[in-house]
Parts: sequence; C-alpha cells; structure tokens
Amino acid sequence: MFRSLCRTLLLFVFSMSIVAQSAMPGSQSILGFSTDSVQTQRGLEAKFDGYLKADNLRDWLKRLSARPHHLGSAYDKENAEFIAAQFKSWGYDTQIESFDVLFPTPKSRLVEMTAPEKYTMKLNEPALKEDATSGQQDEQLPTYNAYSVDGDVTGPLVYVNYGRPADYEELDRNGISVKGKVVISRYGGSWRGIKPKVAAEHGAIGCIIYSDPRDDGYYQGDVYPKGAYRNENGVQRGSVMDMPLYPGDPLTKGVGATKDAKRLDPKSAPTLTKIPVLPVSYGDALPLLKNLDGGVVPDAWRGSLPTTYHFGGRTPTVHMKLEFNWDIKPIYDVIAKMPGSERPDEWIMRGNHHDGWVNGADDPLSGQVAMMEEARGIAELAKTGWKPKRTIVYCAWDAEEEGLIGSTEWVETHADELRQKAAVYINTDTNGRGFLGMSGSHTLEKFINEVGKDVPDPQVKMSVWDRARARQIVDGTPQQRQEAMSRADLRIGALGSGSDYTPFLQHLGIASLNLGFGGENGGGSYHSIYDSYDHFTRFVDPGFAYGVAMAKVGGHSILRLANADTLPFEFTNFADTVSQYVGEVTRLTDTMRDETKTSNVMIANGMLKNVQDPTEIFIVPAQKENVPFLNFAPLQNALTKLQESSRAYQKASTGKRLPAAMQKTLDEILFKTERALTRTEGLPRRDWFRHQIYAPGFYTGYGVKTLPGVREAIEQRDWKEASEQITIVSKTIEGFAAEIDRATKLY
Amino acid sequence: MFRSLCRTLLLFVFSMSIVAQSAMPGSQSILGFSTDSVQTQRGLEAKFDGYLKADNLRDWLKRLSARPHHLGSAYDKENAEFIAAQFKSWGYDTQIESFDVLFPTPKSRLVEMTAPEKYTMKLNEPALKEDATSGQQDEQLPTYNAYSVDGDVTGPLVYVNYGRPADYEELDRNGISVKGKVVISRYGGSWRGIKPKVAAEHGAIGCIIYSDPRDDGYYQGDVYPKGAYRNENGVQRGSVMDMPLYPGDPLTKGVGATKDAKRLDPKSAPTLTKIPVLPVSYGDALPLLKNLDGGVVPDAWRGSLPTTYHFGGRTPTVHMKLEFNWDIKPIYDVIAKMPGSERPDEWIMRGNHHDGWVNGADDPLSGQVAMMEEARGIAELAKTGWKPKRTIVYCAWDAEEEGLIGSTEWVETHADELRQKAAVYINTDTNGRGFLGMSGSHTLEKFINEVGKDVPDPQVKMSVWDRARARQIVDGTPQQRQEAMSRADLRIGALGSGSDYTPFLQHLGIASLNLGFGGENGGGSYHSIYDSYDHFTRFVDPGFAYGVAMAKVGGHSILRLANADTLPFEFTNFADTVSQYVGEVTRLTDTMRDETKTSNVMIANGMLKNVQDPTEIFIVPAQKENVPFLNFAPLQNALTKLQESSRAYQKASTGKRLPAAMQKTLDEILFKTERALTRTEGLPRRDWFRHQIYAPGFYTGYGVKTLPGVREAIEQRDWKEASEQITIVSKTIEGFAAEIDRATKLY
Repeated sequence: MFRSLCRTLLLFVFSMSIVAQSAMPGSQSILGFSTDSVQTQRGLEAKFDGYLKADNLRDWLKRLSARPHHLGSAYDKENAEFIAAQFKSWGYDTQIESFDVLFPTPKSRLVEMTAPEKYTMKLNEPALKEDATSGQQDEQLPTYNAYSVDGDVTGPLVYVNYGRPADYEELDRNGISVKGKVVISRYGGSWRGIKPKVAAEHGAIGCIIYSDPRDDGYYQGDVYPKGAYRNENGVQRGSVMDMPLYPGDPLTKGVGATKDAKRLDPKSAPTLTKIPVLPVSYGDALPLLKNLDGGVVPDAWRGSLPTTYHFGGRTPTVHMKLEFNWDIKPIYDVIAKMPGSERPDEWIMRGNHHDGWVNGADDPLSGQVAMMEEARGIAELAKTGWKPKRTIVYCAWDAEEEGLIGSTEWVETHADELRQKAAVYINTDTNGRGFLGMSGSHTLEKFINEVGKDVPDPQVKMSVWDRARARQIVDGTPQQRQEAMSRADLRIGALGSGSDYTPFLQHLGIASLNLGFGGENGGGSYHSIYDSYDHFTRFVDPGFAYGVAMAKVGGHSILRLANADTLPFEFTNFADTVSQYVGEVTRLTDTMRDETKTSNVMIANGMLKNVQDPTEIFIVPAQKENVPFLNFAPLQNALTKLQESSRAYQKASTGKRLPAAMQKTLDEILFKTERALTRTEGLPRRDWFRHQIYAPGFYTGYGVKTLPGVREAIEQRDWKEASEQITIVSKTIEGFAAEIDRATKLY
Repeated sequence: MFRSLCRTLLLFVFSMSIVAQSAMPGSQSILGFSTDSVQTQRGLEAKFDGYLKADNLRDWLKRLSARPHHLGSAYDKENAEFIAAQFKSWGYDTQIESFDVLFPTPKSRLVEMTAPEKYTMKLNEPALKEDATSGQQDEQLPTYNAYSVDGDVTGPLVYVNYGRPADYEELDRNGISVKGKVVISRYGGSWRGIKPKVAAEHGAIGCIIYSDPRDDGYYQGDVYPKGAYRNENGVQRGSVMDMPLYPGDPLTKGVGATKDAKRLDPKSAPTLTKIPVLPVSYGDALPLLKNLDGGVVPDAWRGSLPTTYHFGGRTPTVHMKLEFNWDIKPIYDVIAKMPGSERPDEWIMRGNHHDGWVNGADDPLSGQVAMMEEARGIAELAKTGWKPKRTIVYCAWDAEEEGLIGSTEWVETHADELRQKAAVYINTDTNGRGFLGMSGSHTLEKFINEVGKDVPDPQVKMSVWDRARARQIVDGTPQQRQEAMSRADLRIGALGSGSDYTPFLQHLGIASLNLGFGGENGGGSYHSIYDSYDHFTRFVDPGFAYGVAMAKVGGHSILRLANADTLPFEFTNFADTVSQYVGEVTRLTDTMRDETKTSNVMIANGMLKNVQDPTEIFIVPAQKENVPFLNFAPLQNALTKLQESSRAYQKASTGKRLPAAMQKTLDEILFKTERALTRTEGLPRRDWFRHQIYAPGFYTGYGVKTLPGVREAIEQRDWKEASEQITIVSKTIEGFAAEIDRATKLY
C-alpha cells in the first residue's frame, strides 16, 4: 500500500509541477545574485539574446569547414587566425599560443585478407556529388587511428565485439585466445583507445576497428547522402592514445609542449598503442567477417551486417602493414580575454576546440560558431558600457581530436596561474537539434539548471530545461522518471573524458561543465569526410536555431558567473549525488559477493559446465576469490559530514549578503572547493588524473568512473587497494567539507 | 538486511540441494504408488528402457519423411497406414479414423511490386544438392498460408512489425493507417493467424508475412546447407485460420467432420482470413522493404536485413493475387489401444501428429518416431505378461498443421466417451537435442517432475530434470533462478495452443501435458522443404539420443499413469501456480491504472507531444478511461478455498491407501477435477474454448492467457466483463476445490 500511496503522491507532485515550472522564467531569484541585482541581470540577458544572429553561425560554419583543418594542416592555422581576428575585432585581448606536439600521419596503410580468399581493403571514402567538400582529397587525412604504432603483422583474425575486458572473458569461456592474432573490434561500448590497449594486453598483434551498421549505419537510419547515417564507405578516424593514462602530447606528460620542453623518445611514450591499429568501413570489414570460422558469437555481440557473426580464431588470415610519419607539428590555441572590472583575478572560462579530423562541420565547428556568437554578443554588451565583474576567458582549442592536446598543453603550461584564478570552465563541442545535455561538477548543478530554465526551446513553447525534463519523464527509465518528477533539479551527468574539460576538471580541479544540444540530430558523419557543411545543414541543425540556443545557454552562464555577487556554487546537490555514488560502490561489493558465491558454486558442482552444449567448446572459468566485506564506515562518515556542511552553508548563506570586502574571499573559498577534491598523488597508476570524484574509466575511456579510486579497485578485485582508497577518498571528502565550513564561517 | 539474509539462505539451500537431488533416482517413492509397488514399477521401467533402440527411430524417420506427406497427399495416407500397421503388429487394437475437411491449396500465387520499381517474387524454395528430398517438387506443397481467402488486391505497402495490436498503436502514433493498403509483417511475436486477423481489423486489404533473418535466418546462425538456419529462399508455410476462435475443420465447429456432418458454407466460415495472405522468404521481402518510404521504425521493429526499416504507407505499391482450390480432403487419424486390465474405462492417452507441411522430418516426425518406439517398448512389456491397469491409447494425428484438425475432429466426434473416460492426455510434437520442456495442467506438475528426475540425460551425467533445472539456475532470470533453487519442483509452463493438446485440455477439460526436448537443436527448417532427413540428422538430433530420451520420458509417464494405484494428481502445486495468476491479474490493473494516469497527464499537459521531434509526424493518442478498482475479493476467497482444499487432500492422502474397491471412485473424482475447470458456455466470444484457467490468447494465438476471461477483459479495458469474469472464474475455482474435498472425504 505504501508503494501505491507513493505513486499517487508522485503523480500529484507531477501534475502540480507543470504549473510551477511554467510560471518560473523571468520571475524568480538567480543563484548568486542579490534581490536588487536580479532584474539588471535579466535585462542584460535579454539584451544579449537580442544580439544573436543565426546567419553569423551559418557564415562562420561555412567558412571554417570549407577545407580540411586537422592538426598541422594549412587550414587549421588559417582557422585559428580567423577566429583570433574575430575575437580581436570584438575587443577581446586575444593571443594565439602555439605548442609543438607529436602527430603521426600515415605513410602507408595496407590491410588484406590473404586466406581463404584474397581481399585488399579499399580504405577510402569516395567523393559524393551531393557533398561539395567531399572531393578535397589532396588535403584530407587518410582514414587512420592516430598514435597507432608502425607494424607489419600477419595472423588469423578474431572478432572481439567491442574489445572490452569482459569481451575477452567471453572469448576465454569459448576457448579462444587472441595471442599472436589480429583482432577485429566494432566501434562503440568504450573509448576507441581501449580496444588496442586491451587487445595488446591479451597478446594480440594487430587491431582493426570497424563501424558496424548496427551501431553506426543503415540500422540507425538512411545512409548518406540519402540520409544522415554512415554509408558502407564511411570510416571513423580517431585517436587511440591511452588517454585514461594521460591526455595531451604523448611526449610531454604534465608539462606544456613548448619549444624547449623536455620530450620523451616517441618509442618509449607510454600512451602510444602497443600494436598497429586501423579503422575501416563496414564495406571493408564484411568480406573478412564473412570468413570468420569457429562458433557463433553471443546475441549481444551480433551486429547488422548480412552474415552470421563468428568468433574466428583460425580463419581468415589477415595482413596489416602500417607506417607513419612521426612528425612534430605546431598547434594553435586561441585565447581571448575580457578583463573583470571588480575581481579580475577570478577567471570565468569557456572553451570549444576548432580543429577537425577533416572538414569538421559538426565536430567541432557547430559548437565553435555558437561560442563565437556568444562571445560576440557579450562584446556587444561591453560596447554599451557594461563590464563583467570577473574576467572572461574564451578559448578555441587546437588538436582536441588527437587527445585533448591543445587544452592539455595550455593548461599544463599555465597550471600555476589557473590554480589561483580559474573559477569555472565551461566546455562545448558538437551541437545539434534536440535536447539540452548537461554534465559536470555537481557543485554547479543548481546553477546550470537555473540557466536552462530561462532559455526558450527553439521548436517547442517551453524552456530547454522543461523539454529536457519532459524527455526524462516520457522516455526515461522508471527511476529517471521518478527523479525528474520529484526532484527540483535535473541531475546532471558526471564527466568522464572525451573533450577539453578534462585537463581543467581532472588535472587541476577546476569546477567544469560540458553542455550541448542533441538527440534530434542523429547521423553518422562522425570523424569522416562527410562531416561537412552540406551534411550539417541538411541533418544536424539546418536553421542554426540550436546553435543560437547554445549561444544563449553559454552566454547566460558566462554572464551570470561573471556578474554574480557570489559565485553560484551550491553543495547540497553535490552531497546528494555523492551519496548516490557511495551507495553504488557499497552495493557493488554486495552484488559482486553474491555473484561470486553463486558462480563459484555453479563451477564447483559442475552445473555451469552441464548446461553447455557438449558439442561446442566451453572452458569453465576458474573460481574467483570470495568478496570480503570492506569497511565503508569512513566513507559513510565523510558523507555525513559533507551533508551537514552543505546544509549548514545553505542555511547560513540563504537570503544573506556579505559585505563587498568579504565577497572576494568567499568567492575564492567557493571556487577552490573543487581543488580540495584533487590529490597531487593522483589516482593509482595514473597520477595525472587527480580528481577523486570523477575520472574516465581506465578500461572504458569515455565512460566516467565516479569515486574512481574505490570503484576501480573493487572492479579489479584489489581489496587492499579498495580499502586504502576508501580512506583516501573519505579524507578528500572531509577536506572538501572543511572548505565549505570555512565559507559558512564567513557569514 | 532481510534481503542479504535471504540470499545467504538461498545459497545454502542451493548448495545442499545439489546433494539431495543427485541421491534421488531409484530410491524414492513414486506419486500414486504404494510403497510395495514402487520397486515393481521401477523394474518395469528399467526393462522398458532396455527395449529402446535409436536405430528404429532413424529407420522410421527416414521412411516417413521420404516424400511430402501433407494433408490430402498420397504419402500422408501411406504414412498413416504404415504407422497403423506398426501398432497393429505390436499388438495394439488399431483403427484408422477418417474425416473430410476443408483444405485449400494454391491455384495461383502472385506478389509483385509495381512501383517505384518492378519486382516479381520468386515464391520458390530451390532444391539443394546437399538435401536429398528437396528436389521433390511435384509433390511439395507450394509456399502459402492455408485458409487465406482468395484475393486480387493492389495497394501501397506498410511494414507492421509483428502485426500485433500494439504494433498498430505505434502506427497510429506515427500517423500511418493501413486502410486500403497491403501490410508486410515479420514472422514471430504471435501465432501467424493473428497477423492477417489484426491487419483486416484495421482495414488492410492484403497481408504478406516474411521470415526476417533477425528472428529466423543468418542472424541466428549459418544458413542451410552450410548451417542449420533459414536461408534467403526458405519460407515458413503455415495455417492462418483464426484458431483462437476455434480450431479444427472451419466448416464443422464443435462436431466431428464426418461424412454426414452439417457443414458451413466456406464463404461464411468464421475462421478463414478476411484478406489474402501469403508467406515469403527474406530474399523476396528485401526488394519491397528497401522501397518503403516514411519514417524510420522504432528500434524494436528493426530486423537484420541490410537496409533501413521504414513504416511505408505510400511506397512501394504491391499487387497480390491469390487463388485457391477449396477442396474437401480426407484425413487419417491412427488410434491404437491397449485395454486396461483393472480399470479399462480410464484412458491414459498419448498423441503426436504424423502429417507435415512437406517432408516434416523434425515437425512432426521426430516426436512421432519417439512415440512409436515408446509404444513398441510398452508392447514388448505386454508380451512378457505385464498388463496395464488402465487402458492406454496411442494417437497419430493427421492435419495438425492446418489447425489441429485431426485431433479436434476426433475429440469432437468422441466427446461424450472422452468426458467419461479420458484421464490424462500427453502430447508431443517436434523433439531435438537439449533440455526437457514441460508444460500443461499443474495438477500433473509434481508427477511429471518425478518422471523427469528418473530419466538420465544422454549427454551429461545427470537426470534430464537436473539439467533442465541447472539451465534455469545458470541462464534464467533472477526470479527463475531463485525459484529453481528453492522450489522442490520446476514450475511447468501453462498451455496456450499450437499442438494437439488443445481439444483435450481446452475443449473437454482433460488434464494434459506437452513434452519435448530442445534448445540445442537450433535451426530454421520449420515448415519448409528443408525440414528433411538430411537436415535433421545433421543438426537436430544426429544420433537420435534425445528421441530415445523422449521415448523414456513418455514411456515412464504412460507406465506410471497406467499402473498407479491412485492417479498421480496433486493439487498444492496447482494452487501455488493459480495464486501466481491471481497476483498477476490483480497487479495488472494496478500497473494499468498507474500507466493510464501518467499517460493521461502527459497527454493533457502536452509533455508527450513536446518531446517529439517536430519535424516528424506524431499523432498524440487519445486519453484513456481511468482504470477503476475491481473487486478481486471473490477470486482471493476462491484461492484461499483452493489452497485449503489442496492441503487437506494432501494431508488426508499422504501415506494412506484406500481399499481397492474405492480406488476407482477416487480415480474418477481426481481425473474429473480438470473438467470442473471448464464451463459449457466457454469464454466470452469463443464458446469452443471452455477451460477457465488456460487458453490461447485471442490476440496472441500460441501464447497462453491464464485466467483468460479475467485477464483478456482487463487487457481490453472492459471493466464490466472483467468483474463478471472474476465472479465466474471464482465459482469455477470453488467448484474445483469442492471436487478435491470429495476426494478428501473418501479417506
């Protein structure tokens, strides 16, 4: 009956909240602003909105995507100079900062099947008459994975699904070793650099990655040029450096890749792959897949090619020969500042990369042109006499595609200054039609929720926040639905990796957000020559309405952060989310304990073996060590402290305003709370990653691991390390709570 | 903590039960047998097992599948005569009973795409050199769906996924009507006859059904002849009569189709389709599917063909022209009896059909030859002087494929005698390598579990029951795992329809079981010319070991039922399962109530509309009437009575033996309990189906609906009927409990 009552109550809240939300825009308070400054700020935002023009986005996108502009290309430099010139012309104090970084490009690429039949891969994306820039073959980078090592290998082929550790456990159960063999993995399920890393750990000698049409092709929708999706020749280029170890130039870990920087020998750079790896189209993959021998793969491994998917292991034989030019190339970051009038040493930072793999209309220019229009709007405000309290810094990064290189090298170069001054970093990347996506530091969750509530959706009469919430309610899991219906704020995602927030958030502990619209911009142009102006304006954001919406979300965020009386950090939401993480890691050991016990019994009594088809190979896995009970008490106590401190700050600060002289002190305590979530020693085996709450997974790459020290130790069944990490992260959280207490004491 | 304790306890039970189960065979009691007769019975079963020879199964399968043997064919009659001759030669009192039934066969078949391009379907399964009987084209039935009406229709094509009612709701939301159009549905998700039925209800003028390789083709495994699965030319023939209305000859509902039976005019027969329908291969379907226009279908609708799946609605245009010979054809049921020595008027019945769509090696001959060897084994026992207490009746049915015609006509003809005498009916059909599947009346659950525990698996050193249980534990859902670990018996499935148990169980209320091995016999020969001796002996049960295992399970079942002192009905398991059904229908209204409320709110406040992509068509569905609270108290009270009566009988009967004179009275009460679960009025709108606990779903066909009167009324949102049906089924259950009480009083 309790359950039924709960539901009814929830429905009631839900019906009411529709009314409450729609009454919100324009009328309420703004986090960090005193009551008397709210109206001024809203006026400023309205004025800002009035400056924004979709045509600017269109013109810039066309111009910037007119030629291939990858790291080291002529047009990459031209674009940096063009962007810098715009910022300069709007009045920003603008610099181009250059670094010299390792950038391999293909000298030769060969993948061929030599038995049982002969097939040489085309490795070529053809020009299409429907796509004006697709024929610029002289300037296009060939299809390849950057930071693959050179290699000339021949061996039988094994299909490894997504190439994650769990996929190799499945191979083990089926008696298939990849030792001395070439693996073929489909894209998806992890950051692409994980695939050759795990393959090499298991003894593979080469790695092919292809785009299966199940995940990225005709299964999803009509293929280009009829529709938006990847056709049989489309290839996803991409970096395969071991980014979860450290991003940026592989030769200059932790320091800026300046002219004189001390560099590693490329041969010993730890983030290069251990085996040669190349991405291919599904057109090129099919002949090989058709020839795989051995058992049929499990259901979850099967893609959408018209063939039966097999493990392989003996057939076919594949020969890969890859050679690269191991060049050092210059990159160009554009840094544009508007100094703060009151608190110039508090930096509100904003960034989006400008380099693409080829023409890069969607990735990254859709975000870049929205950010430029946002910056222009703010510059227009400045022309009217308005000045930001805090310094605004716009960054157009180079070399993101190769491994967040432009942002990482810049952050590493300016680390000391950033530690002192950087209050918040807001990142964007690709942007398209659809729903507002929000991820980042949960101390900024309430802030960014408020911003979203005040920006109207371009297609539907409601705020972009209301539409994002509606989607969670209509299409979400029961849990998401319930939370979206009952919680005041939408829970923002945690950041793993995959764009330029990583050095800010995870290396230096600068509170960060990653924002972007999407979900109605489906397509398969990612990292191919077909990510073009023509593709973008047909399928991604035809009228640039979501580019303008992004400029509004970005602009309002920057204007609020720059103008607020007090920086809009909020800690009860953070505490709420951390309590979820603590619950997850605790339950994880319980689940693993039960599963291990059950699995060990089933192995011991022969049951697992006995249900297998005896005509097929099945290798019974070894029993696993039982999962001990870990002492989570320190973490639970730290969480309690965090919750108390968060509530105390909320209570102390609500409705009160500090004297102007103390605001700066308060600000500094607030924005440095995120620093307290880092440790100089970093995470086990990867000291570059210092954040103790958010990290990209060591074996997932893009995918975040929250409380990473504890969670990954548990996942790796290293109970000793898990216990140590519980102590470490508990202290970190306590330290963070102490910083909140310092802020509370100011009131 | 409760949860964690539960788990630990469960693991303990689990570890212990391994020991308990493996000690069971041979040593324990047998349900229905007094302690002193158990050893004799076990001796008999051991002797019986010794008679069984795999070579017999092989020889008969080869002989019976040597030529096409569908209803009305020369070889169908020859097979019936051959089977009858075998039974006769083993000493059974054997008859062939013949009926005359409506059987349409194709006169002409044409399906062509006329726009935007021209394609005429091949509608042909080619001969393969690897398959000796595949070239018998003169005798093969063409690929078609029996009981489709004639038609000549042209219209645009719409893809309707599996063609179930819910699929049309999805079409509605996407603004697509099938009115005046031809639909193409994939096989699966429901009994095939549902597809044209629901299509016609929505105004479609024609229906194409194809086998998508996702469900039945290369996605599953290598295709024939390389592997076992359906190749691009394979077609699933099959009946599309409206079997959930009534099975059997469409012209003689409820009565045997004897020479003089009163027959409906074929034009008014209600179980014929309303629109022309034809099955096709995926090779023939692909050109049409590639030309579908309109939006992309939802993820769950997409198959494995190398194309993007669209709804269609305007393109392509399809022309179907079908004409049939509407003949009356003779069918031949073989009925073989071995009279009981003590209780000849209690019939233990056993059946398997003998007709196939073409050569039918797997379907149905795999089950047929196992049953024949079982019958021969029992005849061998009889030669040693043993005689069954009760009469054993073996039945080899004709015309099952067209709609359970052979069994239905025979049951309808002999209804009065069967109501008096039939104690139990055990059905088999296809049989192959793998795991024992058990479904049927839950009053026989404990009985059939016991049988399974005493038959060794041919591949693994454990009983077939232990292996079935192991599979539920290893591969089952958490719920199945928990139940298999903690419950003494495996819960058997409920019977919907799809084989010859239907007239026995659901028309007359004769307790029935359906048994068969499978799960390691994957393949796609079903209802095609490739269901051949060659295919079967390569892929389905190469050594006939599972045919012999089936003969053991069937033989032990028949021997126990025929010999038991008391018929082995048991009611606490039945009560346990009914209590699950009652819980399900109760929760169903709760779930529907919540969903309706939430959905109505989302429709009313515009949220549902607002999350849709505005560039695509989306028709907001109408709000639904709120779900009232129904009075389930009568059902809950009846369930309580059932549970009490079951326990009382268990208590009264355990360890006790009635005087011989009363045994017969007890038997009759026991086997007629299942009659008490039927009502002469039948189910709403389908009076032929009289069972109140089990029925095939009106809109699923194969899939069972338990407590069908109540459940289907709720699903159809007919609250008045639901309340009426709650009263009816409650009285039925109370009547059943009263019968148990009668049995209890005999002790």
